[in-house]
Amino acid sequence: MAETFARHDRAASREGRITTMTTVQDLIEFHEITQLKYRYLRGLDTQQWDVLEACFTEDAHAWYTGGAFTHTGRRQIVDFLRELIPPAFVSSHVALHPEIKLTGPTTAEGIWRLQDIVYFTEANPVFDYARIEGGEEMTGAGYYFETYRKEAGEWLIASIGYQRIFEVIERPPARVATELTVGPTRGKRS
Amino acid sequence: MAETFARHDRAASREGRITTMTTVQDLIEFHEITQLKYRYLRGLDTQQWDVLEACFTEDAHAWYTGGAFTHTGRRQIVDFLRELIPPAFVSSHVALHPEIKLTGPTTAEGIWRLQDIVYFTEANPVFDYARIEGGEEMTGAGYYFETYRKEAGEWLIASIGYQRIFEVIERPPARVATELTVGPTRGKRS
Amino acid sequence: MAETFARHDRAASREGRITTMTTVQDLIEFHEITQLKYRYLRGLDTQQWDVLEACFTEDAHAWYTGGAFTHTGRRQIVDFLRELIPPAFVSSHVALHPEIKLTGPTTAEGIWRLQDIVYFTEANPVFDYARIEGGEEMTGAGYYFETYRKEAGEWLIASIGYQRIFEVIERPPARVATELTVGPTRGKRS
Repeated sequence: MAETFARHDRAASREGRITTMTTVQDLIEFHEITQLKYRYLRGLDTQQWDVLEACFTEDAHAWYTGGAFTHTGRRQIVDFLRELIPPAFVSSHVALHPEIKLTGPTTAEGIWRLQDIVYFTEANPVFDYARIEGGEEMTGAGYYFETYRKEAGEWLIASIGYQRIFEVIERPPARVATELTVGPTRGKRS
Repeated sequence: MAETFARHDRAASREGRITTMTTVQDLIEFHEITQLKYRYLRGLDTQQWDVLEACFTEDAHAWYTGGAFTHTGRRQIVDFLRELIPPAFVSSHVALHPEIKLTGPTTAEGIWRLQDIVYFTEANPVFDYARIEGGEEMTGAGYYFETYRKEAGEWLIASIGYQRIFEVIERPPARVATELTVGPTRGKRS
Repeated sequence: MAETFARHDRAASREGRITTMTTVQDLIEFHEITQLKYRYLRGLDTQQWDVLEACFTEDAHAWYTGGAFTHTGRRQIVDFLRELIPPAFVSSHVALHPEIKLTGPTTAEGIWRLQDIVYFTEANPVFDYARIEGGEEMTGAGYYFETYRKEAGEWLIASIGYQRIFEVIERPPARVATELTVGPTRGKRS
């Protein structure tokens, strides 16, 4: 995928022109892929693991944080996320700027801008690189690089990873006079 | 609506497959509904109450902050928002990740991720639960749950509410060496 | 453009109805314009100047920060951005809520909500109005007002500018116990 986008960007800068031929069917596929991504993020931040698990192909591959956290297989990925994200992990992950390309009748790839905010209300040993003892805020921005596969008429995530633009940790001395309230339903309807 | 999405999520997690049949006409309706939402948010943060008022059905129902602020009727909702949001309320509300479903020829429902930032430059008695005395920053994330109705060819908001994932208040001691400048047009073109 | 949107908003508030006639071809054009915008923002935050330069018409006009930074000509705009944005400028600019209108067969205009975060890791003389000495965080929200032109089948940015809702500067005393890490690829794939 990196190659495809790099080629695209080079073509754009060399010629100053890109001839696009988006079809209506493309728009429908792009829409379905965005719905998959939004369901994935809703499962993540509301901590609904069954919603999340249903977003992946069985053989999905994940390389979160630029590859620091790498897992293969839908079950393994979700098991990892459940360990990473206990109830004390209060988060908002948003994805924007989708650049999606169809690469075959049942395959696609996408780049998304990521912004995320996490409040750690307890120590979190999974983030050992960041010494999370509880009371930290972690924010960041980056790009998700994903591939998708359509199985039985439904788009699923076949691979997912991201590279950071930056990551910022605010430790407790930076967070005086700051009050965090977790919503009673944590974003769920009721 | 909660039931519809819950059923959808259960189906997804039970079978691992969702058969989608989005049509081109659906895409056009989804687009129109996003335009309504973006106009609503532009009216809110630029404090253009007539733009905002024109987004609602006459019998609209609002249950902001998980139901803490509940109002029925377009006029009542806008009157409430005008009181809540004086010029000293400097805000940015963004909505992302639309999951919109048509529920009939002239009805639809939608879930959106919300992120908002508010700077209170004066005391605000409406937020009595948060003791706003001026100088606070309030940020938050959540999900909007909305319904829409098409009247005379135009989509309008029939109901709107949200549930918080989290809300954070930074009080003045947290905001030393921090300078807020309000834009000369507050985001309007000129 | 300001006039077009103002007229639109007035019509909405006067009559409470807008008759929309979005076509499938409109959706395809809107999609292409969003792709242009996302490529522009990706070029900006990953500091790929050739990607950025290919987004503009040769005679493009920019009026960033409400006109404080005004430049005409693709080359002049990109030269300005390169000076403004050295490697020590670590940024995330996101654009949301596109309200795009076609104004002719090869012309369009758009409003987008902007949110941006910048970490200055060194002094930056271009931001003289803000006394940037290194160690500051600047965040802001606003609206982009843009026009587009289609040349040889590709949409390009013909003009771009924004008005702030607000801008916030946090100076070093506000940033104790706060650690910034720049990503190894700064958001690029590899």
